[in-house]
Amino acid sequence: MIRIFVTGGTFDKQYDELRGALAFGDTHLLEMLRLGRCRVDVDVRTLMMIDSLDMTDADRRSIVDACRDAAESRILVTHGTDTMVDTARALGTAVSGKTIVLTGAMVPYAFGSSDGLFNLGSALSFVQVLPPGVYVAMNGRCFNWDKVRKNRDTGFFEAI
Amino acid sequence: MIRIFVTGGTFDKQYDELRGALAFGDTHLLEMLRLGRCRVDVDVRTLMMIDSLDMTDADRRSIVDACRDAAESRILVTHGTDTMVDTARALGTAVSGKTIVLTGAMVPYAFGSSDGLFNLGSALSFVQVLPPGVYVAMNGRCFNWDKVRKNRDTGFFEAI
Amino acid sequence: MIRIFVTGGTFDKQYDELRGALAFGDTHLLEMLRLGRCRVDVDVRTLMMIDSLDMTDADRRSIVDACRDAAESRILVTHGTDTMVDTARALGTAVSGKTIVLTGAMVPYAFGSSDGLFNLGSALSFVQVLPPGVYVAMNGRCFNWDKVRKNRDTGFFEAI
Amino acid sequence: MIRIFVTGGTFDKQYDELRGALAFGDTHLLEMLRLGRCRVDVDVRTLMMIDSLDMTDADRRSIVDACRDAAESRILVTHGTDTMVDTARALGTAVSGKTIVLTGAMVPYAFGSSDGLFNLGSALSFVQVLPPGVYVAMNGRCFNWDKVRKNRDTGFFEAI
Repeated sequence: MIRIFVTGGTFDKQYDELRGALAFGDTHLLEMLRLGRCRVDVDVRTLMMIDSLDMTDADRRSIVDACRDAAESRILVTHGTDTMVDTARALGTAVSGKTIVLTGAMVPYAFGSSDGLFNLGSALSFVQVLPPGVYVAMNGRCFNWDKVRKNRDTGFFEAI
Repeated sequence: MIRIFVTGGTFDKQYDELRGALAFGDTHLLEMLRLGRCRVDVDVRTLMMIDSLDMTDADRRSIVDACRDAAESRILVTHGTDTMVDTARALGTAVSGKTIVLTGAMVPYAFGSSDGLFNLGSALSFVQVLPPGVYVAMNGRCFNWDKVRKNRDTGFFEAI
Repeated sequence: MIRIFVTGGTFDKQYDELRGALAFGDTHLLEMLRLGRCRVDVDVRTLMMIDSLDMTDADRRSIVDACRDAAESRILVTHGTDTMVDTARALGTAVSGKTIVLTGAMVPYAFGSSDGLFNLGSALSFVQVLPPGVYVAMNGRCFNWDKVRKNRDTGFFEAI
Repeated sequence: MIRIFVTGGTFDKQYDELRGALAFGDTHLLEMLRLGRCRVDVDVRTLMMIDSLDMTDADRRSIVDACRDAAESRILVTHGTDTMVDTARALGTAVSGKTIVLTGAMVPYAFGSSDGLFNLGSALSFVQVLPPGVYVAMNGRCFNWDKVRKNRDTGFFEAI
């Protein structure tokens, strides 16, 4: 059983047509798993739905607590890409004995040209086979939490 | 470097509007890797573009030869789902020392509700981390070549 | 009030993933009108769901009867493009005093690159403003039923 | 020949993935006309690419001038929905002898669930058949410029 924690980020942004702006609603994750015809046993819980630039230390602590307290030893966390590495670090230094993979998207799933579905498939596979540790899965690759950064000019994640 | 061999299947089917029928054209794989913002080093080659129900022993032999002769030790093969297990068997009994993952789609990528992008992300992740062997990656899961079958009633792949 | 009669055609084709073939299910018309945020009073009825190449004289007669018997004087008919002109002729020679517009699509709405939504918006507008007569609305244009043909090489409709 | 003037609005908004925000780039109109397999003779020119809430009187005057100076007597203007009626009024009181239709979208075309393609087909049909005047084409309907308003609670356009 894989536990999936949703925290928001571009992955789940949508368009609010009355306000003409980006906004959060319910997660699209279940719909995406259906689209992927996913047959992995997963349990999805939304912890929060925010832009990761708006995450506070308290938010990150609640993500850490949720991962630590979860019954499952394999956990996928969907997260905004801007501070994904920060949350990965908080998890890497506080949680052990579990395989935790963070992923997100550069373009909202609700849009036509999103990388969300590709990243979800990618992260869900990594979390099933990687040994205990905390990882970031983006751009088809997976990185140890302390060996990755987001290149803010290109938007791509790279090894450090 | 991951080698990707394209053989067709529903994954790459498209709609021929003049004939009003399904057909094959160029592979959509490069476009899908771009959409996924994939930064894995891959080299894509199209071996054939056919429905796997039309595959002959000669076709399967050429897939086996291509995998054996490839310089890379990690290979992804896109394939129709109907006889994916047959090609996986041909590879499993003939090629060793390489990590080979087969994947496909139940709905063409060219359609709106395709599992193609999810499966591509999934398979690309499995092929990077699994030990040498031949695997089928479908529905978010990965199976050893000799422990899987396609359930023709549901369309899902399951362990045997 | 606009009456909409659905007869099938590429407009409503979808992909049957278990058989790996094109097929008909329920019409997508209501979903398309919702997507277009359409506020025109319409009443939708499915007369049949077939490829227009499979239409018999009996099928065309039932479309003529339905149009003649309808309470509404403005009617939109969705139809396969291959024999749309034949049905337009049957209507043009048998029904008077009503504005009837036929439209269809070259690519199924269920696919990503469909002209269906554009044609629906186009036809729905023409049917609201044109004087009584029978018309074909395709490629953004509208043609009198006896002055149009489908160019089978290009797939476009043109005036004759 | 139909003249199309692009002024921006939600119709053409897109997602800037590096900034994580909505933004304007080149118009999608040509791509949309291709998707619709449109065979109407059109000439597209971008006057500006802005949110209509940001339009100034000077902007509206330049739209009026462009319409007045255009060689064509049938003109389509794509526009943000928020102040579409204001621009329609500016045109209605200043330009005569031409058929001018304004349209837009509640959801960006770049998104999956957009009304843009439907509205484009709708407006392009109205502009071909309506007599000289200024009109707003939204929600499948067409309104005279001085008999319409946008209902800001529902997002729909209605007759007054």
